[in-house]
Amino acid sequence: MTIKVLGYAAQSAQAPLAPFHFERRAPRADDVVIEIQYCGVCHSDLHNARNDWGNSRYPMVPGHEIIGRVSRVGSAVTRFKPGDRVGVGCMVDSCQHCAPCEQGLEQFCEQFPTLTYNGLDRQDKSPTYGGYSEQIVTSDKFVLHIPDGLDLAGTAPLLCAGITTWSPLRHWQAGPGSKVAVVGLGGLGHMALKLASALGAEVTLFTRSPGKEQDAHRLGAHHVVISSQDAQMAAVKGKFDLIIDTVPYVHDLNPYLPTLAIDGTLVLVGYLGDLNPMLNTVPLIMGRKSVAGSLIGGIKETQEMLDFCGQHKITADVETLPIQEINEAYERMLKSDVKYRFVIDMASLKG
Amino acid sequence: MTIKVLGYAAQSAQAPLAPFHFERRAPRADDVVIEIQYCGVCHSDLHNARNDWGNSRYPMVPGHEIIGRVSRVGSAVTRFKPGDRVGVGCMVDSCQHCAPCEQGLEQFCEQFPTLTYNGLDRQDKSPTYGGYSEQIVTSDKFVLHIPDGLDLAGTAPLLCAGITTWSPLRHWQAGPGSKVAVVGLGGLGHMALKLASALGAEVTLFTRSPGKEQDAHRLGAHHVVISSQDAQMAAVKGKFDLIIDTVPYVHDLNPYLPTLAIDGTLVLVGYLGDLNPMLNTVPLIMGRKSVAGSLIGGIKETQEMLDFCGQHKITADVETLPIQEINEAYERMLKSDVKYRFVIDMASLKG
Ligand SMILES: [Zn+2]
Ligand SMILES: [Zn+2]
Ligand SMILES: [Zn+2]
Ligand SMILES: [Zn+2]
Repeated sequence: MTIKVLGYAAQSAQAPLAPFHFERRAPRADDVVIEIQYCGVCHSDLHNARNDWGNSRYPMVPGHEIIGRVSRVGSAVTRFKPGDRVGVGCMVDSCQHCAPCEQGLEQFCEQFPTLTYNGLDRQDKSPTYGGYSEQIVTSDKFVLHIPDGLDLAGTAPLLCAGITTWSPLRHWQAGPGSKVAVVGLGGLGHMALKLASALGAEVTLFTRSPGKEQDAHRLGAHHVVISSQDAQMAAVKGKFDLIIDTVPYVHDLNPYLPTLAIDGTLVLVGYLGDLNPMLNTVPLIMGRKSVAGSLIGGIKETQEMLDFCGQHKITADVETLPIQEINEAYERMLKSDVKYRFVIDMASLKG
Repeated sequence: MTIKVLGYAAQSAQAPLAPFHFERRAPRADDVVIEIQYCGVCHSDLHNARNDWGNSRYPMVPGHEIIGRVSRVGSAVTRFKPGDRVGVGCMVDSCQHCAPCEQGLEQFCEQFPTLTYNGLDRQDKSPTYGGYSEQIVTSDKFVLHIPDGLDLAGTAPLLCAGITTWSPLRHWQAGPGSKVAVVGLGGLGHMALKLASALGAEVTLFTRSPGKEQDAHRLGAHHVVISSQDAQMAAVKGKFDLIIDTVPYVHDLNPYLPTLAIDGTLVLVGYLGDLNPMLNTVPLIMGRKSVAGSLIGGIKETQEMLDFCGQHKITADVETLPIQEINEAYERMLKSDVKYRFVIDMASLKG
């Protein structure tokens, strides 16, 4: 039997989010039914709601930083039981048998993963709806265990902002003895600072404007470099093993490349588009440096990140809001007016 | 006592190369005196002779793919003796105590390596003159042993074209089970095919125009992909662990990125300048791919490459010419009219 739920949806690219009654599928044998408590607000929610990427389906219920409690499980589910605290991130399914899936890289599934919203269920082809809603019904393979003792609202952003920065930090082996820089101090950037410093790396924040030093240090940065100051940039020439670039809009990478050490890598996690101005190859060749990209992370890796955050008591810095204020929150996000992530308290839906 | 030698030099950016009498330094305790037998002709010789990079000093004696025989050694030299067959590549010295030097990455010496020509000796600040000459006097630390049994003319290009392609193949671990593609079939590209296939990789040549299949297969390629054919490009989507891009002029990298496998890397070894058209980040992010650069290789690695070539009987395909034809050879190089490297027979100097 399908489950009637209330959520917030965009009915078109122009419409503000508004209450929306819809049905979740009748739980399958491998499904987990989750009562959603918190849902983080990711920049991609806004882009999808407004069809900025041209592939939006409506009605759209955004939200892929989901924290909740299991209310029911299908007959084949063994890893979860009612009452468990769980999370759901950007993906709810994948083919599960291609080479990337078998390596735990479901985000690169050769048949494309099923996104938590704005996707189509692999079995019944029904649209997927995200976390701005009371409940979600989803396959147990993409449900994460949430460790005890973490603030639940602050944990929600780990499911996207957390794993998006954790995955490159781990892949490029940030840790004791390595020097990591982070470009941009938003939802992703503030998680990158926390995770990199907890991993034991020496952490630097690149920022365009002064005034963020105090916050950066509190979040884990050992150093702050004002990227518009040539002398400060020159002082970190050849320093970084890894730069995590979280900036979501077009920006010039060329000033950062000389700050990479030999064999260093600048990883883009926030920007999809052309590198404008053009990337110059000289600093790449003179030091065997790389420019790379990274996309969220796999499910096993997401669980490892959550377990790590449990051990190190790491959550996002969040501003909790009722769902009724989501449209205002989007406007504030466009002005980067949030420290550092909005999280919807889903109890407000009942209000 | 200084050594009088005859070479060929450019006296200005506009002048053709012509006979030039000059002096090599009196050998120091750690110097090796080499009677030059062959010198390969690298594209950078032409660029330097014509001041294409704006940093040329004249008179300039080009040449950094040097093969010869030791005629004399300084009192402190233990690794070489008169009669040894030796090589000299792009560098003749470095600071030898910075971190890159200590890691065997002299090409990235923090104080910049001393180039074989168009450089300045670190001790007496005299200009360095390259291999288009009868003899060279140089520190033993940058002299390579040439294995027995290799054709000497064909061995000369290993000192630049060989190490330039070997170093990224090794760094990115090309070998059995890995899929390597090579962009461009010139001096560098033909060495990349030979070395990658000898290392056991499955090797593909990307080329813009048909007609090179037979040569490519002979040189070690298992497959040839015509990069202007969309269907052929689509057929290799997601295939390559490593692409060695040897093209020396500006070209569009975007068509190659989708052919990289997850975690694959495209390494630029031939092009210094802006990536025009702009690089698009989507294929980097959707598969954790990288664009990187690589520059020649260190001295230890160069010796390993030469030893490998000795074991596998690998030399470059060369067209040997007398020094008197060097200016004509430059014109032919500009038209890519060489298969695949010109090598000067230095006996012609005496002719
Ligand atoms: Zn997100
Ligand atoms: Zn898959
Ligand atoms: Zn060269
Ligand atoms: Zn050095």
